[in-house]
Amino acid sequence: MSLVVVGSVALDSVETPSERRDNVLGGAAVFFSYSASYFAPVQLVGIVGDDWPDEHTQLLKKRKIDTSGLHIVEGGKTFRWTGKYQPNMNDRETLEVHLNVFGDFNPVLPESFRKSKFVFLANGSPITQSKTLDQLPDAKLVVADTMDLWINIQHDELMALWKRIDGVVLNDSEAKLLTGDENLVRAGKEILKFGPTFVVIKKGEHGAMFFSKHETYVMPAFPTPDVIDPTGAGDSFAGGMMGYLAEKGNFEPKTLKEALAYGILTASFTVEDFSLDRLKRIERPDLERRMEQYRQMLSF
Amino acid sequence: MSLVVVGSVALDSVETPSERRDNVLGGAAVFFSYSASYFAPVQLVGIVGDDWPDEHTQLLKKRKIDTSGLHIVEGGKTFRWTGKYQPNMNDRETLEVHLNVFGDFNPVLPESFRKSKFVFLANGSPITQSKTLDQLPDAKLVVADTMDLWINIQHDELMALWKRIDGVVLNDSEAKLLTGDENLVRAGKEILKFGPTFVVIKKGEHGAMFFSKHETYVMPAFPTPDVIDPTGAGDSFAGGMMGYLAEKGNFEPKTLKEALAYGILTASFTVEDFSLDRLKRIERPDLERRMEQYRQMLSF
Repeated sequence: MSLVVVGSVALDSVETPSERRDNVLGGAAVFFSYSASYFAPVQLVGIVGDDWPDEHTQLLKKRKIDTSGLHIVEGGKTFRWTGKYQPNMNDRETLEVHLNVFGDFNPVLPESFRKSKFVFLANGSPITQSKTLDQLPDAKLVVADTMDLWINIQHDELMALWKRIDGVVLNDSEAKLLTGDENLVRAGKEILKFGPTFVVIKKGEHGAMFFSKHETYVMPAFPTPDVIDPTGAGDSFAGGMMGYLAEKGNFEPKTLKEALAYGILTASFTVEDFSLDRLKRIERPDLERRMEQYRQMLSF
Repeated sequence: MSLVVVGSVALDSVETPSERRDNVLGGAAVFFSYSASYFAPVQLVGIVGDDWPDEHTQLLKKRKIDTSGLHIVEGGKTFRWTGKYQPNMNDRETLEVHLNVFGDFNPVLPESFRKSKFVFLANGSPITQSKTLDQLPDAKLVVADTMDLWINIQHDELMALWKRIDGVVLNDSEAKLLTGDENLVRAGKEILKFGPTFVVIKKGEHGAMFFSKHETYVMPAFPTPDVIDPTGAGDSFAGGMMGYLAEKGNFEPKTLKEALAYGILTASFTVEDFSLDRLKRIERPDLERRMEQYRQMLSF
């Protein structure tokens, strides 16, 4: 089944302890779409300026991502983010953010996207996320990401949105901030009370935790020695997860668990190079091979 | 097969964000023995002063731990440690350390212990660990723990010891300190080069990683909402792991992996109360029940 994602499309500048890349392809919706495209057709909704290199659109199209929802603003500038990673590659500092055209992002979905059954609302204002959801009356599964900013400044709007959706994906630090609880097991269970049917807490290099009424589990990250650039790992995780769910066309507990694993593995490739560079070099069989290793790792 | 452990026996004072306990039973060899005793007969070697409450010895004996290697120094004082946990319950600050009689610990193993096949050298000076090992000519599997102090001040002695043993168990922060590498996958592989056949990196609330020539894997911690006091979790992990290996009488890759899981589960009980209080309330079937949940958690 087709999957729609609404979120940021960006040009990133990234500094790691050993290297720096400027103006590379980034943004939550981009990492998400590319990762999901291994599993299902993806419809991308985003906004860029006329400084947006057409080659990026072509790259997405090559993976059969429908970019007809990518709005190009003439005379506008694309969202830019600059960040710097600490030596541990898990903590990062945002050095610069220029929202540019993304600051006025008011997603209007193409008619052909509005029947989508699987929906991912990438990190954005819960007000915008909510307006997007209004345009998707046939949605069967809606999952949303968020960030500390919205927890702090649009808390009520966020809570209102979460009552309308099925799943929430957020970072460990955000789960702690939101609940005031440092224990992630308690935090995850607490967040369930805010409305969603399931909650996924992303723990970066330590994997992810899943919470629903009947289940609590943790899945470790795939151990890779080649962590080059973690940017986009969380969105890539969500893309792999949602892509697999859309491929299967259901979100039964069994499918959700497999989806989480695919999310973890897709993200494990993403961090192995800058931007989408590592993903560009893999195909579905590479994911399946890593899945085989991952299953073996967790069997005893 | 019987298992011998040599290490600290202590009286701990522990402060957590919500509670404080003074002079409770602690020490690496104590957490280790009690945890291992669910699986195999344990021989404990340690040293205490005459302030040592006999009830602690009785508690260990009740679990069939052979305490004939626990040396009581008349007129001496038992090792005391005072620590305080941060709200995240993962980071802690050592407030006071009084080595007392443990400062001159020169383990002399009872004759009946010297034929032991399974050996755990709990955290201690590598010089002392090495002298202990000299008394165990029949050892089949020797595993040692260490800490940042020895990495910093007795580096060469530590490296010499590691060439003589089979397995090393250490914390993530210690693995990073030793190798200068923030990536734990690379760090683990690097430590293998120092001599041991396998390396286990403990990641606290995030579980543990295993490294051998042919295998690299991660196992998550068991997700418990009731983290009351993490003191002794690492030693309890090692106890569960080594106890299971001694019970099975081998350390084939398959057995090692199961052992790691048992270590993780034993530790998950330990953190659910102060000192040995949670472990005192469980028996082997409780571990098996949690193992069933853990296996299910990791199956998909």
